[in-house]
Amino acid sequence: MSYTTFEDGHIASPLGFRATGVSCGLKEGTRARDLALIYSQHPCRVAAMFTTNAMKAAPVFFDQAILARNREDIRAVLINAGQANAGTGQPGLANAVECAKIVADELEVPRDSVLLMSTGIIGIQLLMDKIRDGIKRAISELDSGGGRRAALAALTTDTRPKERVLRVQLREGRRITLAGFAKGTRMIHPQLATLLCLITTDLTIDSRLLNRSLQQSVARSFNRLDLDGDTSPNDTVLLLSNGAADGPPIIDASSWEYGAWQEALDSLTADLAQQVVRDATRTGKIIQVTVRGAPEEAVAHQVAQNVARSTALRQACTHNLPDWGALMAAVGASDAEIRPDLLELRAGPLLLMQEGVAVAFDYNAGLQAFSGPEIEFIVDLHLGPSTATMWTCTWHGE
Amino acid sequence: MSYTTFEDGHIASPLGFRATGVSCGLKEGTRARDLALIYSQHPCRVAAMFTTNAMKAAPVFFDQAILARNREDIRAVLINAGQANAGTGQPGLANAVECAKIVADELEVPRDSVLLMSTGIIGIQLLMDKIRDGIKRAISELDSGGGRRAALAALTTDTRPKERVLRVQLREGRRITLAGFAKGTRMIHPQLATLLCLITTDLTIDSRLLNRSLQQSVARSFNRLDLDGDTSPNDTVLLLSNGAADGPPIIDASSWEYGAWQEALDSLTADLAQQVVRDATRTGKIIQVTVRGAPEEAVAHQVAQNVARSTALRQACTHNLPDWGALMAAVGASDAEIRPDLLELRAGPLLLMQEGVAVAFDYNAGLQAFSGPEIEFIVDLHLGPSTATMWTCTWHGE
Repeated sequence: MSYTTFEDGHIASPLGFRATGVSCGLKEGTRARDLALIYSQHPCRVAAMFTTNAMKAAPVFFDQAILARNREDIRAVLINAGQANAGTGQPGLANAVECAKIVADELEVPRDSVLLMSTGIIGIQLLMDKIRDGIKRAISELDSGGGRRAALAALTTDTRPKERVLRVQLREGRRITLAGFAKGTRMIHPQLATLLCLITTDLTIDSRLLNRSLQQSVARSFNRLDLDGDTSPNDTVLLLSNGAADGPPIIDASSWEYGAWQEALDSLTADLAQQVVRDATRTGKIIQVTVRGAPEEAVAHQVAQNVARSTALRQACTHNLPDWGALMAAVGASDAEIRPDLLELRAGPLLLMQEGVAVAFDYNAGLQAFSGPEIEFIVDLHLGPSTATMWTCTWHGE
Repeated sequence: MSYTTFEDGHIASPLGFRATGVSCGLKEGTRARDLALIYSQHPCRVAAMFTTNAMKAAPVFFDQAILARNREDIRAVLINAGQANAGTGQPGLANAVECAKIVADELEVPRDSVLLMSTGIIGIQLLMDKIRDGIKRAISELDSGGGRRAALAALTTDTRPKERVLRVQLREGRRITLAGFAKGTRMIHPQLATLLCLITTDLTIDSRLLNRSLQQSVARSFNRLDLDGDTSPNDTVLLLSNGAADGPPIIDASSWEYGAWQEALDSLTADLAQQVVRDATRTGKIIQVTVRGAPEEAVAHQVAQNVARSTALRQACTHNLPDWGALMAAVGASDAEIRPDLLELRAGPLLLMQEGVAVAFDYNAGLQAFSGPEIEFIVDLHLGPSTATMWTCTWHGE
């Protein structure tokens, strides 16, 4: 591994970034931070993934419009919590445009160099007066040490920020920094770049490769979570690369440097995804579903997702009952072509089914496999070499 | 309407049927009835629908094999509760064959004229000694008044049988009877003929039309329930027509008689489906989702199903919170092509969104719309003439 965790790092740890989070009264009844601003001294290349939900929020439409004409010169990201600016129609879009304009004018950067994210309640308009004041205050507080404040300001029902920062050692003594935070506890389902996530780096990298690396990392991290089967109108993942670190750009997908970068980005997003599921479950249980022996990864993913979505199986886990028939039924209910006579099922180390036939097990061992805060199911289709792992969780009191 | 409810009726009320349910010790720790037998004095034509789950239970494979060569001369259905005979491999299939053989031999009917259904725990073998004794006892107790006992014997986690019987008035003074019962409280999802359901009638009807009428009725009843998104390896709907009532067969799909029959069968299955959701929810809430204005019924169904499966929306209902953003997000997350700018959403009479924009509503009215034991959501896509309604429910403590 060519990377190490930077324990005290935050979203502004990569060179050339500044950030802050302020409280401007968007979260009703609290004085919590609710407006985050992240600024780069240098123009950023951006890779982005957005919700596939048809009822997209205004900031999603806004970002997609900006990125359609400018993916090379982004300077700032504004995140508000409290109002999602979704279901808000034309006034909502006008407010989004206005937010970006204020940020751009105050920062004296081009008007199409500001991106937005919103999270919070659907169907109410942004509180523009408060945001206007908040933006000015945030700009005056921008700081290379302010990343933690930004992560806090993006939270809604989260209990804590999900953050990780990596130092990546490239060749010839070059070192780059990669930082990310995420928010989200509900409406998490893998048809998209789930939830809100911002990633910054001081690496210089070709735009096409930046995009490719983000697609791969999200596919193997956020898209492996299925907490409740719901998607949100606001889901956005943004990756900003400002090239502030020394050294030539990464332009070759087969280079050692690109491999090291991808490995670090995979690790960062996987870690953030794990933090999301751990924060979401609260007093519930984390369920890991691994599907092996699939003819291809997409099939493994499909079966794993069906298992992760099973209400009956989650209820079995909630109640510590070895009702593994729900696992078998969930595998069988997927659209994937499986061979029932080859199917093998395990709960942790406990063998439940082999060659499609139930295996008698000690009831206490069964109880143990379905108890505890983390439960693992392993499905082996015995049809090929591919594997996928997904995570879901039970909710308190489900 | 050409039909009336027969209040004291049961599965053996149509002419020529006999039934019973006995206790033979299949439900561990209880003396509840657990083995049902339904017999027809006359050969039955059969229409059937089975689970789409790949991990089919042995009785499903058995019935499919029988019906592949005989759909005109079925004489009996044996139902056991306690063991699902699913995940039981070759020994499970051998046990199914043996059950049908015992029934056929004892009743002195052809060996391929007996169908099976099983429900209960997955992955354990049938208790054949107990079933063998039970079959003999059941045959000695077969009675034209024994249908209620059969319905009781098919229950597992159900709190009560789901039954309905209709008298249908055809032309020229002819009267036929149509009876059905269903069982099921979990793993109910519309990719199949859900749960176990047996329907009997003394009508004479062409095989093709019998099948056609069942397909339509199930599509509009059981396939409109999505309680937990799970399917079971055992789901089976059987419709037996023995022609014991007077009169010529129905052979014309455009005839008045066929219309009257279809109307009655639709009513019967819709009523049974409603009874299933009401029994399943216990202390939870029933949620009705109606999608209007779809370009075709399949689209309406698709959107309705996505709403019915939304965990976030069910949680809003459980907690009496007017969190209708989850409704909007669920509509947007469906694969159907919708026009966000036309979308209209209501909770009961309360308008939530019009032309894709949130409508401000009184918070108390919102609380009221999300409270109470039955909650209705209405989605109007404003894209066409088609409608579909689905039902789901919250679980106690979810």
